[in-house]
Amino acid sequence: MAASSPATLHRAVVEQMVRQAVYQRLGRSLPRGAKAPNPLVVNVSARHCHLTQQAVEALFGKGHQLTVHKRLYQEGQFAAKETLTLIGPRSRVISNLRILGPCRTLNQVELSYTDGIALGFDLPLRISGDIKGTLGCMLMGPGGFFEMEQGVIRAMRHVHMSPADADFYGVKAGDIMKLHIGGPCAIALDKMLVRLDPSFKLEAHIDTDEGNACNLAPDTPGELTR
Amino acid sequence: MAASSPATLHRAVVEQMVRQAVYQRLGRSLPRGAKAPNPLVVNVSARHCHLTQQAVEALFGKGHQLTVHKRLYQEGQFAAKETLTLIGPRSRVISNLRILGPCRTLNQVELSYTDGIALGFDLPLRISGDIKGTLGCMLMGPGGFFEMEQGVIRAMRHVHMSPADADFYGVKAGDIMKLHIGGPCAIALDKMLVRLDPSFKLEAHIDTDEGNACNLAPDTPGELTR
Repeated sequence: MAASSPATLHRAVVEQMVRQAVYQRLGRSLPRGAKAPNPLVVNVSARHCHLTQQAVEALFGKGHQLTVHKRLYQEGQFAAKETLTLIGPRSRVISNLRILGPCRTLNQVELSYTDGIALGFDLPLRISGDIKGTLGCMLMGPGGFFEMEQGVIRAMRHVHMSPADADFYGVKAGDIMKLHIGGPCAIALDKMLVRLDPSFKLEAHIDTDEGNACNLAPDTPGELTR
Repeated sequence: MAASSPATLHRAVVEQMVRQAVYQRLGRSLPRGAKAPNPLVVNVSARHCHLTQQAVEALFGKGHQLTVHKRLYQEGQFAAKETLTLIGPRSRVISNLRILGPCRTLNQVELSYTDGIALGFDLPLRISGDIKGTLGCMLMGPGGFFEMEQGVIRAMRHVHMSPADADFYGVKAGDIMKLHIGGPCAIALDKMLVRLDPSFKLEAHIDTDEGNACNLAPDTPGELTR
């Protein structure tokens, strides 16, 4: 899970600031891509889960509150210090499953297809939150077990954006965009779902399979198109 | 490692035959994509190694010959029954590493970036055969150890083709093409290296990270473009 501490700026943000300053100094107008209201940050979402407060208490003990391990790029979101063991439907196990906080109103585990193969079942591809009819799993924490009846998915790749970003790209919530990743293992990821909220910073989320397919690094160039 | 037995036809081959028969029956000319001299087969190359006969004998005993587990799509190539244990530079292990036969004149291990992360080092991206200066590993078989001084790589994605295919696509050996994979997790893979030989059947090879990024299945549509 890529993260940035609140005290530092993300590389993409710094790059955009430098780019704007250089073009201004040269007295040139910015190329279209550099005119975007916000820099595009591409982050790999490693396997993780979202939990309700009730599930956290079942797993870590009555009254337990998630603690911050790393702040994520989206405001208020964090990787928790707490991790879990997941026991899949065929009794295979994934250890050290990271919890992302804060707590939500539903329990959901997001895995890659590589994880699905290791667990021995076909993960459904779902928009985050749409877990009806999906398989569940058993979660094990230091304070006990919690059975999720459903909610183990591969999350559909998506991009968080604010209304200003959506205006710039000419898209609306639920639209599909394409993410181009450059470098020696360049790929284009179709079917990037647009998730819109005034609080969102512009950030594309891909999973570890997708990140490893293109060997995504902090300096790998990324571009969004319709 | 996807494979097809010599007694059965690959799905893509059958589809091309059916397509051609249907268009002929309807009295219509084939669309351009269906006019290709050969159907495009896309296969995932799971982690594997190529060995010299000398390495095989060090690992499995004097005079040992690789035995056929499954015939691969390329003529004469096979997944061997024999597998190995790989011990990486940080003493981490990958078990059940499949050997592909027949023996070659060099030893090479092809892993995914996911494997590289599990082993704890950065895999270099190389064209198969170009292993100079890469890290090696220790291989362990039932008959002994064999130390590879170099040759652990992520193989650059590539497409095997014959001169007739190259003519159709307007490419030559060493050119770079793009592979479009459809379906719910559609992606486009840039930088598919063209590997040309009169004996080659038209087949794109991607690794498990790339295959899982797009959830490649036997019926997932694929298309090559320049």
